[in-house]
Amino acid sequence: MKITVLGAGGMGSRFAIMLHNAGNEVNLVDGWQENIDAIRNNGISANMNNQDINVRLPISTPQEIDKTGNNADLIIVFTKSNQLQETFEAVKPIIGRTTYVLCLLNGIGHEEILKEFVPTKNILQGITMWTAIMDGPGKVRLSGDGNVELQNFEPEGKVFAEKVVDVFNKAGLNAKYSNNVKYSIWRKACVNGTLNSLCTILECNIGQLGKTKEADTLLKKIIAEFAAVSEKEGIRLDQNEVFNHVSETFSGVGEHYPSMYQDLIKNHRLTEINFINGAVTNKGEKYGISTPYCDILTQLIHAKEEILNVS
Amino acid sequence: MKITVLGAGGMGSRFAIMLHNAGNEVNLVDGWQENIDAIRNNGISANMNNQDINVRLPISTPQEIDKTGNNADLIIVFTKSNQLQETFEAVKPIIGRTTYVLCLLNGIGHEEILKEFVPTKNILQGITMWTAIMDGPGKVRLSGDGNVELQNFEPEGKVFAEKVVDVFNKAGLNAKYSNNVKYSIWRKACVNGTLNSLCTILECNIGQLGKTKEADTLLKKIIAEFAAVSEKEGIRLDQNEVFNHVSETFSGVGEHYPSMYQDLIKNHRLTEINFINGAVTNKGEKYGISTPYCDILTQLIHAKEEILNVS
Repeated sequence: MKITVLGAGGMGSRFAIMLHNAGNEVNLVDGWQENIDAIRNNGISANMNNQDINVRLPISTPQEIDKTGNNADLIIVFTKSNQLQETFEAVKPIIGRTTYVLCLLNGIGHEEILKEFVPTKNILQGITMWTAIMDGPGKVRLSGDGNVELQNFEPEGKVFAEKVVDVFNKAGLNAKYSNNVKYSIWRKACVNGTLNSLCTILECNIGQLGKTKEADTLLKKIIAEFAAVSEKEGIRLDQNEVFNHVSETFSGVGEHYPSMYQDLIKNHRLTEINFINGAVTNKGEKYGISTPYCDILTQLIHAKEEILNVS
Repeated sequence: MKITVLGAGGMGSRFAIMLHNAGNEVNLVDGWQENIDAIRNNGISANMNNQDINVRLPISTPQEIDKTGNNADLIIVFTKSNQLQETFEAVKPIIGRTTYVLCLLNGIGHEEILKEFVPTKNILQGITMWTAIMDGPGKVRLSGDGNVELQNFEPEGKVFAEKVVDVFNKAGLNAKYSNNVKYSIWRKACVNGTLNSLCTILECNIGQLGKTKEADTLLKKIIAEFAAVSEKEGIRLDQNEVFNHVSETFSGVGEHYPSMYQDLIKNHRLTEINFINGAVTNKGEKYGISTPYCDILTQLIHAKEEILNVS
């Protein structure tokens, strides 16, 4: 399959390497010049389950993209949520009539942006539990196991979605066709909407949050807002199950600082709050549902971005 | 007048010095041993409007207090809100039938605690705009001007409240009898309930908060909750006026870090959030009014206290 991976960070590199090793034609697109230069000159250096490997793959900026009409069969989206719009403006040339777009980003509402560029019948959505750490330009660390769950956005996309599952499984990506991927997306968004925003605003890791007396109440309030809004989109979240699922991380990955903390507090980068709690706020407004915890968390995170002069 | 000042921090020292200099019999009560030792050995060293002065005043711990029945005419409360209960347990012996208690603490709900120890007819409430900085044990810096507004809690207290106004004015404390001190207390609590909690959770100063795009919304939401709750207690806050009053501080005292920030972030001490946003949460619950912004701010500040191992 001819696959373009948008975003050659940790996750994009993982998928690119695994799909390339399984014999697919993989192209990378990234916006960070140092990363592009490193990958062009030296390939991706990956430590994969404690084994050092090096993989050479073509990489370009969104602007340099192949404009010859040589379309991709599949575009996998691993950009930052905030860059989705501008990246797709630039990669239009490789989106053909038969190009499918698979979005595996955390959060909610990416399809609203994708719809501007791709017919909804060509959109696939999913979530992944794979992880990856980026150590610097062209350098990634890939350990542990993961999986992918995906589904077509409209019935017509099912045949291709199943083909992607097959291609992913041949690459060891442990993929599964889901009959209700939206549920999984909302469920995972609850994890990010609690742990990411709370650990960022409290400047703590997941274990520290879990040890506070307030954690349970905070989680429950936030999950209730996600559930009230998702219900309007036909997803009835099992709030107790989701709460237990989030709580399990307190002891499970306690030492871990969520990605939003790393973005904002550690690296002074913009967060993806607009696609997490902010998306619930926006949808809540649209459906006439009050979502004060998501509202104030979104406001506080944006205020913190401004205070840290992040843009 | 025989006056006991509870809490020999910056503000307590200011009032004690000014009232002592005007000829009143002033006793100090404090819980910090180093401070007590310094004041016992060397008096209070104050820099008052750039003039160095030294004032010797009797000081004791709450536990050492005069138990001979030698009651105070007036007790002025400048303890930390969190210490109010335990301090009053200890100073019971100096509270006689004719002892009045004046509470000038920031925040809401102190009277609920005072009522356990003093008949409500002997309670006076007020606010003050005087400031003070504590530089270390027995050392304070007192500059600028200020004033005091006070009122009796019940009609019977009016005569004594007016007497206190007179005593304060003779000491240069610029006091005024108020016909609606509760309005002033709630109005000032709105300043603390916005600037203190937001600057603490965002770890920023007042000017930085004011420059964020979110500040206006955050202020308005919080003030609206204070207003909804205070209305149930007969206080109809003018929300626009209060919003403008708080906003003025953004340029006025922009470089200033509010006291809650200094307590928690700088000095790793417990905050007084339970007497500010937390009091609105509690009263909201009692009156059946939803106060989500105050709720989550209280929860976040408590969580931060725990994360910083403050107790």
